[in-house]
Amino acid sequence: MADARFFELAGPYSLNRLEEISGATLANASDAAREFEDVAPLSAARAQDVSFLDNKRYLPDFQASKAGACVVDPTYADHAPAGMALLVTSKPYRAFARIAAAFHPEPPPLGRVDDHAHIDPRAALGTGTTVEAGAIVNSNAQIGERCHIDGNAVIGEGVVIGDDCIVGANASLSHCLVGSRVRIHPGVRIGQRGFGFDMSDFPYLDVPQLGRVIVEEDVEIGANSTIDRGAGPDTVIGAGSKLDNLVQIGHNVQVGRGCVVVAQAGIAGSSVLEDFAVVAAQAGVAGHLRIGRGAQIAATSGVMRDVPAGQKVAGAPAMPVRDFFRLVSIWQRLLKAKGKSDE
Amino acid sequence: MADARFFELAGPYSLNRLEEISGATLANASDAAREFEDVAPLSAARAQDVSFLDNKRYLPDFQASKAGACVVDPTYADHAPAGMALLVTSKPYRAFARIAAAFHPEPPPLGRVDDHAHIDPRAALGTGTTVEAGAIVNSNAQIGERCHIDGNAVIGEGVVIGDDCIVGANASLSHCLVGSRVRIHPGVRIGQRGFGFDMSDFPYLDVPQLGRVIVEEDVEIGANSTIDRGAGPDTVIGAGSKLDNLVQIGHNVQVGRGCVVVAQAGIAGSSVLEDFAVVAAQAGVAGHLRIGRGAQIAATSGVMRDVPAGQKVAGAPAMPVRDFFRLVSIWQRLLKAKGKSDE
Amino acid sequence: MADARFFELAGPYSLNRLEEISGATLANASDAAREFEDVAPLSAARAQDVSFLDNKRYLPDFQASKAGACVVDPTYADHAPAGMALLVTSKPYRAFARIAAAFHPEPPPLGRVDDHAHIDPRAALGTGTTVEAGAIVNSNAQIGERCHIDGNAVIGEGVVIGDDCIVGANASLSHCLVGSRVRIHPGVRIGQRGFGFDMSDFPYLDVPQLGRVIVEEDVEIGANSTIDRGAGPDTVIGAGSKLDNLVQIGHNVQVGRGCVVVAQAGIAGSSVLEDFAVVAAQAGVAGHLRIGRGAQIAATSGVMRDVPAGQKVAGAPAMPVRDFFRLVSIWQRLLKAKGKSDE
Repeated sequence: MADARFFELAGPYSLNRLEEISGATLANASDAAREFEDVAPLSAARAQDVSFLDNKRYLPDFQASKAGACVVDPTYADHAPAGMALLVTSKPYRAFARIAAAFHPEPPPLGRVDDHAHIDPRAALGTGTTVEAGAIVNSNAQIGERCHIDGNAVIGEGVVIGDDCIVGANASLSHCLVGSRVRIHPGVRIGQRGFGFDMSDFPYLDVPQLGRVIVEEDVEIGANSTIDRGAGPDTVIGAGSKLDNLVQIGHNVQVGRGCVVVAQAGIAGSSVLEDFAVVAAQAGVAGHLRIGRGAQIAATSGVMRDVPAGQKVAGAPAMPVRDFFRLVSIWQRLLKAKGKSDE
Repeated sequence: MADARFFELAGPYSLNRLEEISGATLANASDAAREFEDVAPLSAARAQDVSFLDNKRYLPDFQASKAGACVVDPTYADHAPAGMALLVTSKPYRAFARIAAAFHPEPPPLGRVDDHAHIDPRAALGTGTTVEAGAIVNSNAQIGERCHIDGNAVIGEGVVIGDDCIVGANASLSHCLVGSRVRIHPGVRIGQRGFGFDMSDFPYLDVPQLGRVIVEEDVEIGANSTIDRGAGPDTVIGAGSKLDNLVQIGHNVQVGRGCVVVAQAGIAGSSVLEDFAVVAAQAGVAGHLRIGRGAQIAATSGVMRDVPAGQKVAGAPAMPVRDFFRLVSIWQRLLKAKGKSDE
Repeated sequence: MADARFFELAGPYSLNRLEEISGATLANASDAAREFEDVAPLSAARAQDVSFLDNKRYLPDFQASKAGACVVDPTYADHAPAGMALLVTSKPYRAFARIAAAFHPEPPPLGRVDDHAHIDPRAALGTGTTVEAGAIVNSNAQIGERCHIDGNAVIGEGVVIGDDCIVGANASLSHCLVGSRVRIHPGVRIGQRGFGFDMSDFPYLDVPQLGRVIVEEDVEIGANSTIDRGAGPDTVIGAGSKLDNLVQIGHNVQVGRGCVVVAQAGIAGSSVLEDFAVVAAQAGVAGHLRIGRGAQIAATSGVMRDVPAGQKVAGAPAMPVRDFFRLVSIWQRLLKAKGKSDE
């Protein structure tokens, strides 16, 4: 079902093969030879498509789906419509991701440097790396193998990028070291000077920002996000962390491994996210704070204090999420009481 | 008064002609032959300028204005200073827009492809379309007639753009189909992969994002806004909708017709804005929600539940706006009571 | 300690010389001849490094630091470890900024226009100005002396830029006049049309935006920030103001001198920040408001009314910060009471 103008299509695959690819288990071995042509959402899938159920909100869509096969958690297997082949797994989204990637593999980079790319003679490009028209690779930059530098991106002097990285269109990188398998979306800004200046007199005086940005391996950085370089220490984005679009990371921030920062959230200068912390959309973390391992900051909250490991917080100022929901119910009670007194 | 370095000037126009152009009615027919040279804000207008009053906040400026003519709602006509010619209409802002456009027409695209634009031989450009230096149009992209693709913009492989569109400087489009008369401001990001990955194990696993972005006709998208492509379904921006700067639209979001999303607001994945919904600045709509037709989300609110058609909500979590203001007045009462007990 | 790939290193300097450079006073004249090689944060500094203490939060780092010299407020001088030379001043951050800039001077622009820059023959470039590859300077633009226009930036028709300015990679400017010593970071958007349209009928009708953006001298604008041009009046950013990343400035906004707008904050159309106002991260100021001289808006707050000069406000809707903290303590009391009644 994916638009052939934008996505390559591989396959078909038998369910037997999809079982191997996905790690899920076929509920009914007699389906093993059935062949499938593509993936599709539950509501749009046809008999030749594989779909998935990951969120119980979509159970009605599952029950009404025309998908020939579906990846599903064992809990929901009994709700399947008749004739639907089931690939059962406790991690259906992950299994589906593997199947979708098998049907729609990302084309490998062509290893072609466009005649209209601007590569400084002192820069180094690894084998298999593609650089599109208008992209600039400045002096002493080092780019690894099989990378894709998209049109009009700008790689600053001395920047180091690992293997198998993608730098999106019109992105710009300076003062940074980037690990392998990092995906930088269009319009991302990495390495510009942090927001550091002395305000004790006017005009204010800029403080030189002498750190770098270290982006570890397997990181994803969403479109138009901004990551300032450190003031002295480095700004660090830990391995495997995922940043969404329009995220702001201030100077000296340390984002641990496996963190998730959702769209339009911001982490102010010198704060630390320990491993696996999650900051939901539009949330803000003030400067010089420590967000503990696995802590979760709800969307739109404003964090003004350290958050212990594993704690979930919400609100502005942020408080434990259970307190926040109790506070909201107190507000509702007050509103109801006022409604009565207004009558 | 507009700076001639940036804006062309047409005219002069008689009030008779401006009556025709604007659809407003001249209060005093004896003014019909008076000629005007430009438009200007109330406080800066001179005798040869046409101004407008649209917001009663500016009534004192109206009363003190030196504008020779003014577009005004009948309600305020009596407050006009002596000698000011009045163009009366119940829609003064709309009438003024037409007059301002008559004095300052946007120059048509020259239909010139710069020698330093990068057009793939397999791409198609309509007649009259201008492509500026550094802009890239990749293979199999199709661009309609009379478009303007500004400097260093990047149009991805297979992208389709209708007629009379503007793509601003340094914007990038991929995996999208764009209708006619769409205005995409500088730095906009359309079509990058949505923020979809499985978190059941670490490292997380990206889920292929196999949908597109569909931008219907007459849409405006503000500078540095980001619209991710769908995960399977498409992300859709309905006809005539207006998005301001730095707006985030997540994967699979459906924005209806005539919606308005103000600066720095965000709509999380798979949510639906029905026609004519308004999301004010910095507001956030969580994922998988439905915002009803004509609903209005106040600035900075955080919407965690569906909003019925026509309802106005505010606060975080968002509640009906009347409840929000009552809650604020309850807070103020509590503060006053505490102030007394603190004495 | 700064990475030599990204930062030039000057020096060494004697403490005597650093006293002159910084304006601080050497606590012990016998240290005057000691030479230093670089600056570094307290926790990373070595014997040959100069560090600084500006925030009492870092007092333990100061006491444990191996820095050979430190810039410090007289209040903390007694806490210095044995053997550390002290440069004493009531403005340690400012003094340190001068020292850091002495060790790591920014290289002057080379005055080189890249062969792959696109300069319209009707544009004017001052002497000493560098234009990098892919940058576009359109007709009748005027750029002053010793500017640096980075790769793939786009300077629109008629734009005027003063001396000693920096325009970052992939930034775009149109319809604007920019003073001297302005630093525009990568991806900034200046001068696109404001979000002005008439909604009295559908389709909505765009109102021509006939103003400009005036950026006065010594302004800094953070990465991916957006500043719309005025609708009729100009949008103005006053001298010496500092805008962080992802900031939104709506049409007609007037930002005074020395204002600070932190990351992801937004100022809606026609509002005024008087001189030295501070808007912290993610805060929003609604349209048509006046924020008084030196007022401070706390992070994440939503300002719906004028704020008097000097007042500090917080919350959404914003209230005096003292009231906000009292309100939060009232909430906490209500939560505690409810906790008891829940038992």
